[in-house]
Amino acid sequence: MQETLLDWSDQERDVARRVFDLAYQREIDSLIDVVRQRSGSLSSVESVWDLHDYLSCKRHEMDGRFDFRLANLLFVFASLVKEGVVRLDELEGLSNDKLAKIGALSSM
Amino acid sequence: MQETLLDWSDQERDVARRVFDLAYQREIDSLIDVVRQRSGSLSSVESVWDLHDYLSCKRHEMDGRFDFRLANLLFVFASLVKEGVVRLDELEGLSNDKLAKIGALSSM
Repeated sequence: MQETLLDWSDQERDVARRVFDLAYQREIDSLIDVVRQRSGSLSSVESVWDLHDYLSCKRHEMDGRFDFRLANLLFVFASLVKEGVVRLDELEGLSNDKLAKIGALSSM
Repeated sequence: MQETLLDWSDQERDVARRVFDLAYQREIDSLIDVVRQRSGSLSSVESVWDLHDYLSCKRHEMDGRFDFRLANLLFVFASLVKEGVVRLDELEGLSNDKLAKIGALSSM
């Protein structure tokens, strides 16, 4: 499953970068929506610290997930597809082999 | 400056507890206002992590500050008076000696 720089054509790298950035923006937009909703219903110190814990968790998760190394990218996309952040057809332009791997991994 | 349990009358302990709880609630209300304002203007991932950093800082600060040990209470109140969270006259009911110490510390 290890992919090297040579395994990705220029076109594939462009597709990957575009979808990666798109997914990142979607995650940020979704996060901002959640923060706004939660901040509207803050009423106690516990609710403020719950929001803080949520942000700590999301930051850690996103720092770990959005790592644009080609060697790791099939797993990143599989995880994003599995969670509905990215659709498989948005990755059109990658080789059939890569799409098949991402599809298989995302259904595990 | 060390105060022991015996140095605080029942009335003084009641005053201290009431003002302490009031200050805590004021800090929470103020924090919730800030979080709501900031969440309304979130637009980027940096602004979300800035809010997270702010909450981390406030949580650490409040955990350290709101420590209801009588031995430490003059410093806590001096700090709250200095920052305008509590007015000195709200501490009426404490001995003149304690009020003088709090007033002096808060002006340092």
